[in-house]
Amino acid sequence: MKRIYVADLPSNPGKEVTIAGWMHAFRRVGKVVFLLLRDASGIGQVVVDSQEQLDTLAKLQDESVLEVHGTVVAEAQALGGFEIHNPQIRILSPVTAVAPFPINKPVLNVSLDTFLDNAAFGLRHPQKRAIFRLCGEAMSAFRAFLRDAGFTEIATPKIVAAATESGANVFKLDYFGRDAYLAQSPQFYKQMMVGVFERVFEIAPVFRAEPHSTSRHLNEYVSMDVEFGFIEDHHTVMDLLTDLIRAMIEHLLRHCSSEVHSLRMQPPAMPDKFPVIYFPDALELIYRRYGEDCRQEPDLSPQHERWLCEWALEQYKSDFLFVTGFPASKRPFYTHPNPEDTRYTNSFDLLFRGMELVTGGQRLHLYEDYVKALADRNLPLEPFAGYLDAFRYGMPPHGGFAIGLERFVMLLLNRQNLRETALFPRDLNRITP
Amino acid sequence: MKRIYVADLPSNPGKEVTIAGWMHAFRRVGKVVFLLLRDASGIGQVVVDSQEQLDTLAKLQDESVLEVHGTVVAEAQALGGFEIHNPQIRILSPVTAVAPFPINKPVLNVSLDTFLDNAAFGLRHPQKRAIFRLCGEAMSAFRAFLRDAGFTEIATPKIVAAATESGANVFKLDYFGRDAYLAQSPQFYKQMMVGVFERVFEIAPVFRAEPHSTSRHLNEYVSMDVEFGFIEDHHTVMDLLTDLIRAMIEHLLRHCSSEVHSLRMQPPAMPDKFPVIYFPDALELIYRRYGEDCRQEPDLSPQHERWLCEWALEQYKSDFLFVTGFPASKRPFYTHPNPEDTRYTNSFDLLFRGMELVTGGQRLHLYEDYVKALADRNLPLEPFAGYLDAFRYGMPPHGGFAIGLERFVMLLLNRQNLRETALFPRDLNRITP
Repeated sequence: MKRIYVADLPSNPGKEVTIAGWMHAFRRVGKVVFLLLRDASGIGQVVVDSQEQLDTLAKLQDESVLEVHGTVVAEAQALGGFEIHNPQIRILSPVTAVAPFPINKPVLNVSLDTFLDNAAFGLRHPQKRAIFRLCGEAMSAFRAFLRDAGFTEIATPKIVAAATESGANVFKLDYFGRDAYLAQSPQFYKQMMVGVFERVFEIAPVFRAEPHSTSRHLNEYVSMDVEFGFIEDHHTVMDLLTDLIRAMIEHLLRHCSSEVHSLRMQPPAMPDKFPVIYFPDALELIYRRYGEDCRQEPDLSPQHERWLCEWALEQYKSDFLFVTGFPASKRPFYTHPNPEDTRYTNSFDLLFRGMELVTGGQRLHLYEDYVKALADRNLPLEPFAGYLDAFRYGMPPHGGFAIGLERFVMLLLNRQNLRETALFPRDLNRITP
Repeated sequence: MKRIYVADLPSNPGKEVTIAGWMHAFRRVGKVVFLLLRDASGIGQVVVDSQEQLDTLAKLQDESVLEVHGTVVAEAQALGGFEIHNPQIRILSPVTAVAPFPINKPVLNVSLDTFLDNAAFGLRHPQKRAIFRLCGEAMSAFRAFLRDAGFTEIATPKIVAAATESGANVFKLDYFGRDAYLAQSPQFYKQMMVGVFERVFEIAPVFRAEPHSTSRHLNEYVSMDVEFGFIEDHHTVMDLLTDLIRAMIEHLLRHCSSEVHSLRMQPPAMPDKFPVIYFPDALELIYRRYGEDCRQEPDLSPQHERWLCEWALEQYKSDFLFVTGFPASKRPFYTHPNPEDTRYTNSFDLLFRGMELVTGGQRLHLYEDYVKALADRNLPLEPFAGYLDAFRYGMPPHGGFAIGLERFVMLLLNRQNLRETALFPRDLNRITP
């Protein structure tokens, strides 16, 4: 008999059905013993009615995998309003190991390290599962929006001959006796592909050998990348990003209501247009409002980002804030300058709830500008030759951005550590499981 | 004025429009000079009508990026039946470099190495573009089918502490002073996630340090991975794969008709059920039909695969053939044995037009079976501890498979070399561009 999900019990009242899943918990109410069976769809309740069955089940540990055949009966007290009576129980995979921590309580009460050490087990907790279902849906929403907007999906190489932006923070590899690197971003490739498709996107891992361990960094993460041509300037890019972020959040609210509910996700405050502040104005605002004179700083600190977001929420009722015009010295060589003041650039960060979520901007598009930009930074041309070909042979004004998947979901859920929203996080101290 | 694509000229007859793109070619017919402008949607024709314009354009090389403003006029002789008259032309990015080879002929006539050395330029050829649009659409079709079938998308780490299947052919990495590896497949992670979501998929790069260079191998490729639980045996997996392959091909035929047409893609012969042959029977068949006595061989050679496909096409009118039951000695340790004859396994390859396209099967699901399988192969338990936790804490019977994206598209298009369908291929000799 074809198995059904426990979520489908309500549409099979009175019928004989087969369900299957993990032995989530037992519950004894008076003389009745309930078996809670967890499958991909949720948790279903089975009334255990014979001593023999009880004896068999009592020998098993939680998480044993069972198949249950029985009759669906309406019962107001049951989870979902239905339960299984007269069960026949078949053991698919018996478990004898004792769980390292309980995953059948509503909230997982365990340290992050213990959880990560036991991820294959701990990820089964319904709240953890909800987080990573949101991650999957966020990727899907990203792609759906971009496909509708005429973008083509690409898959670019992760083993590369030259570091993307500088030699720092890049993992080195022995590639058949010569040096190769793990791509820090698909930047060069997505730009090259603008010459082919005009509008491209990619979701793929990126690798950053940053030798420090903070709650807001990982050494490998999922980057959702966009690049497109025939833009006016970085504002064209920001407009697309605004629509994309809104579409992704609306998708999650619409298609993941049970995850949104169980994780208590607060929908972000999003005005029609996200507020924008120019970098020097942002520093001036911090000085006036918070008293820290950072007006000579070339970049924003985490505290600055928090202050600016506090201001944007108060002033514009927005959880998002664009900061534009970062100084050229702090942006990579391919960044397009602000034509009206070349100390600054046509770049932006999108801040979300106190933290940078997206980095993007307009890129240089003329070959001679690349030659000059590399020379200005004392970088050699040769390692970039294949990339520079895209500009030698004609590229339109273009730009793009990258969103970190784990960071997007972390900020959306108001979590404090990227390791809570990375499936199997990699950091200075952890490459297992 | 908002730019339109050249493919939209027919819906704007008589109107003033702006188009933009790359200077694909000039064509002189009698006294009239036509500028062919290529954008993401196709190629549009512009009638150049002043000597001044002609002089300006004559100074530019092909691939210069132009914006053209003019009137849409019906003209039966024009590409697509419409052309632009009275153009005003603005140069967005002038090109002075001479193209390394022409990309404005219907067929790209250049050696593979020269093409790959100039990929940023050469990929703009409409036929190359068509190939990689098919790749993007194939990924999209794969995901759409699996989402509809209740699968959850996951993103698993590519930096791992232990090699997946053996220590051979794996890229080694310096990870902050200790050894790490690039994942040869997401095998362990997708199995662990069956314990969480039951049904999972992932599209991501995989890395194989195979020290040889053949037309059918790459050192980095895009793996489309599937894994799911509560299966009967490997036949459940093969049934899903059959439906998936059919859905992907139907998607391409329906949504990429211009690419299918321009690349002369021959739709594969696909009976309702793909034929299946058991490994020992396959060797016997080769012996009887082709005279090579390979009946003691533990695996199929490329020639064997070609012969079997020839037979399947003749016998079953099928471009696809499942071979099941490969010997345990040639399959990884997690492969489930055939319960009726443990010399063989519940594994399969799906052959397509003479070559292995997919490898898959049923996996072990009991912890003690893993302990024994590792011991049988003299592999230590410890590096696999995090992975084995999934089985210690209960896993259903499960299985899955992986499809190589580049190989799928190569075989679909009857191409001879994976480097023709890999966007920026990585092999023994090439990691640029």
